[in-house]
Amino acid sequence: MLSKSQISFVCSLHQKKYRKEYNLFIVEGSKSIIEFINSNYEIEHIYSQKEAITKFNNLSGKIKHTEITATELKKISALTTPHDALALVVIPATTNMLPESFKNKLTLVLDKVQDPGNLGTIIRTADWFGFKEIICSEETVEAYNPKTVQATMGSLSRIKIHYTDLPSLFELTNIPVYGAFLDGTSIYNTNWEAEGFVVLGNEGNGITKEVEKCVTHKITIPKFGGAESLNVAISAAIFCTELRRPNVK
Amino acid sequence: MLSKSQISFVCSLHQKKYRKEYNLFIVEGSKSIIEFINSNYEIEHIYSQKEAITKFNNLSGKIKHTEITATELKKISALTTPHDALALVVIPATTNMLPESFKNKLTLVLDKVQDPGNLGTIIRTADWFGFKEIICSEETVEAYNPKTVQATMGSLSRIKIHYTDLPSLFELTNIPVYGAFLDGTSIYNTNWEAEGFVVLGNEGNGITKEVEKCVTHKITIPKFGGAESLNVAISAAIFCTELRRPNVK
Repeated sequence: MLSKSQISFVCSLHQKKYRKEYNLFIVEGSKSIIEFINSNYEIEHIYSQKEAITKFNNLSGKIKHTEITATELKKISALTTPHDALALVVIPATTNMLPESFKNKLTLVLDKVQDPGNLGTIIRTADWFGFKEIICSEETVEAYNPKTVQATMGSLSRIKIHYTDLPSLFELTNIPVYGAFLDGTSIYNTNWEAEGFVVLGNEGNGITKEVEKCVTHKITIPKFGGAESLNVAISAAIFCTELRRPNVK
Repeated sequence: MLSKSQISFVCSLHQKKYRKEYNLFIVEGSKSIIEFINSNYEIEHIYSQKEAITKFNNLSGKIKHTEITATELKKISALTTPHDALALVVIPATTNMLPESFKNKLTLVLDKVQDPGNLGTIIRTADWFGFKEIICSEETVEAYNPKTVQATMGSLSRIKIHYTDLPSLFELTNIPVYGAFLDGTSIYNTNWEAEGFVVLGNEGNGITKEVEKCVTHKITIPKFGGAESLNVAISAAIFCTELRRPNVK
């Protein structure tokens, strides 16, 4: 049984302001919650329907656990059709990124991506392709937005998301910066270096002027038809698959 | 000025039942509407705000055109934040597909894709990569769903969508059928024939049993990390980019 104040507390976490204040975010669905339990994330509380409780029994030893009804779940869920459970998860402390950590690998970077669903899909796709982290500009949508978390389908538990000032990072690391543009070299003819950043820009406006100045290689996904642009999550997927083709380092 | 019955008529087209009954669908935003005017589609009526009217002046000679206010647009729009205009467009008559039309090319096929946004994103991506048509199983979500139309960003005006019984089509044409599975040959090592179908399945369940029986080549996007699956629009994009790489026929 949930009290009014508990309902209002969980619902407050649908908003960024309160996620920041309480340092908590929401993960929905037992499948995703289990992935977070098995990760480095700290789970604060699980609210689950009776049917889902057994799923957590062997996993969530010290985690606070409240049984709730479908009606109660609907009250605290951010989804139109809630799953079977909802967890409050602690937002991890930001860690400093060492310039050395970007050596000998290609790292995905997002510059002002605004749509939570797009960010979530990018995180899920990056996880499929074995990337361990994504660097985001400070203006990129928050990874703990419920729509983002939902779209990651549990992949957020495996991918570290860093928010930082991109030009400063690029200056500090001094490795190649590949950027997705409409007027660059074909992605099919790109010889990727062993290390570098691969930057995707905003849905409507692409890469910002400040970041463009740092780009050392402009890359294009060749266009064969009439569409004016590609969705940013689609572009990210095309970069991910290219970076993982066997001919790439 | 819109009458109550006009508002209710346009709103009825948010539902599949009435789109079918009146043979009309909705396109929103002057940019997309102009792409439909410049296509083979027949436009029945444009409702636009004053600011957008001039955009259609030289294009929409015989099309009925009504100036409406932002408040009226909000009443008839399927969007939370409506654009500047809304058009009613005639659903084209279904055309027979000749088996010969699938010779010497690779054709995208969707088997029971359910999410309107996914279908729209696939249409947009296919358009970017120069595909001219997509074949859908009869259980695939309707292409004239407002969410699908919106997600195509105008690309629906350039891509023909056919709905048909897939096993019958495959039997009739007798060309290779590539299918996206989790346990197939790597997409990176696939030698594509000059002609064939490339099938993507349902979001949760993949390709149906009936269609699987027709698949001659099971293809997999190799997994390098922890995600359990990829979004179907992401998979479609990865297939599209592979099919357009210079080494493919």
